[in-house]
Amino acid sequence: MADGYSQDLKVKIFPIETGKLICVLNEVDAKEMGLFAGDRIEISNKRNKKRCVAFIDVTRSAMPENSIGLFQEVADELSAKGKETLIVKASAQLESIDFIKKKMQKQKLSSPEIAAIVNDIADQRLSDVEAAAFISAVYINGLDLDETIYMAKALIGQGKSITFNKSPIVDKHSIGGCNGRATMIIVPIVASFGLYIPKTSSRSITSACGTADAMEVLAPVNLSLSQVKEITQRIGGVISWGGAVDLAPADDKIIRLEHPLLLDPEGQVIASVLAKKATVGSKFVVIDIPVGNYVKIKDKEKAMSMARKFVQVGKEVGMEVEAVITNGDEPSGLAFGPAMEAKYAMEILERKRFDNLAQKSCELAGALFELAGACKQGKGYETALGILRSGKALDKMKEIIKAQGGKILSSEQIKLSEMKKEVIAKEDGVVDDINIREMTKIARIAGAPANKLAGVMLAKLEGDDVQKGDVLFTIYAENRQKLAAAVEHVSKVLPYTFKRAIISTVR
Amino acid sequence: MADGYSQDLKVKIFPIETGKLICVLNEVDAKEMGLFAGDRIEISNKRNKKRCVAFIDVTRSAMPENSIGLFQEVADELSAKGKETLIVKASAQLESIDFIKKKMQKQKLSSPEIAAIVNDIADQRLSDVEAAAFISAVYINGLDLDETIYMAKALIGQGKSITFNKSPIVDKHSIGGCNGRATMIIVPIVASFGLYIPKTSSRSITSACGTADAMEVLAPVNLSLSQVKEITQRIGGVISWGGAVDLAPADDKIIRLEHPLLLDPEGQVIASVLAKKATVGSKFVVIDIPVGNYVKIKDKEKAMSMARKFVQVGKEVGMEVEAVITNGDEPSGLAFGPAMEAKYAMEILERKRFDNLAQKSCELAGALFELAGACKQGKGYETALGILRSGKALDKMKEIIKAQGGKILSSEQIKLSEMKKEVIAKEDGVVDDINIREMTKIARIAGAPANKLAGVMLAKLEGDDVQKGDVLFTIYAENRQKLAAAVEHVSKVLPYTFKRAIISTVR
Repeated sequence: MADGYSQDLKVKIFPIETGKLICVLNEVDAKEMGLFAGDRIEISNKRNKKRCVAFIDVTRSAMPENSIGLFQEVADELSAKGKETLIVKASAQLESIDFIKKKMQKQKLSSPEIAAIVNDIADQRLSDVEAAAFISAVYINGLDLDETIYMAKALIGQGKSITFNKSPIVDKHSIGGCNGRATMIIVPIVASFGLYIPKTSSRSITSACGTADAMEVLAPVNLSLSQVKEITQRIGGVISWGGAVDLAPADDKIIRLEHPLLLDPEGQVIASVLAKKATVGSKFVVIDIPVGNYVKIKDKEKAMSMARKFVQVGKEVGMEVEAVITNGDEPSGLAFGPAMEAKYAMEILERKRFDNLAQKSCELAGALFELAGACKQGKGYETALGILRSGKALDKMKEIIKAQGGKILSSEQIKLSEMKKEVIAKEDGVVDDINIREMTKIARIAGAPANKLAGVMLAKLEGDDVQKGDVLFTIYAENRQKLAAAVEHVSKVLPYTFKRAIISTVR
Repeated sequence: MADGYSQDLKVKIFPIETGKLICVLNEVDAKEMGLFAGDRIEISNKRNKKRCVAFIDVTRSAMPENSIGLFQEVADELSAKGKETLIVKASAQLESIDFIKKKMQKQKLSSPEIAAIVNDIADQRLSDVEAAAFISAVYINGLDLDETIYMAKALIGQGKSITFNKSPIVDKHSIGGCNGRATMIIVPIVASFGLYIPKTSSRSITSACGTADAMEVLAPVNLSLSQVKEITQRIGGVISWGGAVDLAPADDKIIRLEHPLLLDPEGQVIASVLAKKATVGSKFVVIDIPVGNYVKIKDKEKAMSMARKFVQVGKEVGMEVEAVITNGDEPSGLAFGPAMEAKYAMEILERKRFDNLAQKSCELAGALFELAGACKQGKGYETALGILRSGKALDKMKEIIKAQGGKILSSEQIKLSEMKKEVIAKEDGVVDDINIREMTKIARIAGAPANKLAGVMLAKLEGDDVQKGDVLFTIYAENRQKLAAAVEHVSKVLPYTFKRAIISTVR
């Protein structure tokens, strides 16, 4: 019995999925039961004895007294049809609430404590507000190395996983880069060499394009876990959207709650990335940490510390991790936006270009070869480069596109928006700096990534000579209004700066 | 235009009040617009040009593509009937999000920054998740004195307020006490003396009874702001439920979000209490801070520091505050539970009892008299005591009960549950300590505060002599099951301990 109150309530079902377990009570009933909006209750179905924990919304008028409104997910859990009588009880206090409070009070959490929180998030026993408090506490007070390991293990304990018929499984991940789809070059190189690389990628959150957005220009990316497995076993690699497979439900929810405030506490990021890799069975993982003014991590010390933690946490969850620091000061390649970045990656595979993006892709693929013991130490880069130059990587990419159900097999088939505008240099000079953050913003204003044809294509990279009248970059927009807005934004910011002898003056 | 996407969408209205601004999009539309569940969007009604900011839920099946589901509050804001076409745009980033992030990063917030957050919470522009992140940051990193002042002023700037036809307006507030309804004794004493005391009280959250719960045994407490004003101007005082008047919508929402994790950061509590007093026009306020093992504040140093902040913040918002530290180690009076506490307070007004609760009430009323300059310094307590002894306070209480629409005018009219059980002493001794927290829990298990007739009445106080077989306390329960559960809980805990010479032994 404990500290709760129960009542027999009539049921009304609202056939709406909210992604949460929510029910609605009349204000008077809630008051009588001592319940407040957002409180957790236990509901049981008298008829079939099914039980469910849910959160209440309180209404003045939408529900009559002595009744309860169930949104679809709650109705499903209780197999309620709308004819039964339900019993409602204030839910007992969750232990994980105490652990969240503990983290808020700057205390270290144990492995079972973190597992309890992660399980309660995954199973929706913690409300968004409670989970947000945990995430805020982790952002403010941090996770130390032990806690990061506990978090990674707890996330791995959740969700589905794949076991493959062959090893080794390898993978790569880039932390907070801005543009350039190295994954679309690395995966076919690695798969050509006979290793399995079942890559799950993200869509853009704040950038102009995520790998899943760019790959989707060529082929469907919403693959199920069994499709990821089947394609990888058949041809060695896949480039799918991680959100479509239910790899780590707690992690997906944490990321969703982190999103509005753009929270990305280091420990949580490390645990989240490695947990996703572990659930697809990866044993050898290269982590790319770009450092620069316009990317997430701005100084090398912080990158090195994060790199060491990646390696240590990886070891604890049974993975060999190599974390590499890369130059994030300049754009990777020239393209910003889904179609543009897909076209650009295909041009590299087609050997029409070889630039800093191609270079980086071969170095990372080479690092994976060496880490997995698939080639001699020191020979990884040239092995990867050889595969790219031979055309094998392009052939493999076409296999992957076809396996995922795509039809676009060459860069020439990829269309860009016809609504475009070239931005011209107004003076001579040498490009000193390209503001990647502003370039991303211009691409987004133009319509990327929601509109795949929109984006920005650079014509000049850092160090390039520019003559007055040269094209600096071209904006491709979804429509005339967005093009105008993007051009207006360019006039307000300085995405390109030229080298100057006098850096500052005093007078 | 900026960084957003718009579409023409068909409307479906869900006639459910959620207390929030929520709309539902199909997963495919959300993805096309680059939106995630929980994102903030701007909706405009093409027909009448009305606009509204809302948060999205994403559904796979409840809404078809190219349509939008509106919950009642959003439909109301847009005057949408279900026939119109709406345009949806990703909302521009709120400035207050940056300020929340700043607080999370342990930086000090300015007055306009705190005002922006409070306004966005009040007007529902911040989601629960975002507001929870702010509250967590305040809990973890604290508000310093300046920030507490800014917070109080921002909360005062929100919501409705009252201006009375006479001054001074006085008020009292108790922080985290456990039982005893001093307010029900203080208000009639103060009102009898000719001062205005428009008291708004809370309902219980974790205790066995709040003042509003106990007063409701005698009279309705859901009074509107104009009723509070009218009754106070007519007879000097009122005891209403603060939740019924819309005094501080931001504060109400903050308290609701603090509730699941029982967060009560000092600065937020001070700002919240004083803001509520300021909006009813109080100029002289006594704050009672009980200190003891079983109340919220456990050590005197912390209480003194909080007391000083109350005085300083009060000054900044135009109030004279006297904060008094009181003994929270023993129960205030003998009653736990709404009917019991109401009956007990009436018995004090009827001069059938005079105990530590009566004593405290007269001291606090006296402190108010002196603070407001209504009587000579040093004469407050005896003035208050004189009013209580004369029977004028009882007469005033009857006026207040009648003015609020109540009919119960004496302690004898108040019924307790007939389902009761006396708990008997098993040995002789002197009462050393009563565990108020356990006593509260026993009362709650018995059914309080949702069931007003349930609770606990003590028969012995600290220091009392007890003979084996004496009644220690009586449990009054809502029903037989709850009585059994309460009795079972008593057998597991030791709510009474007796004095012992040997405190601990080593062998």
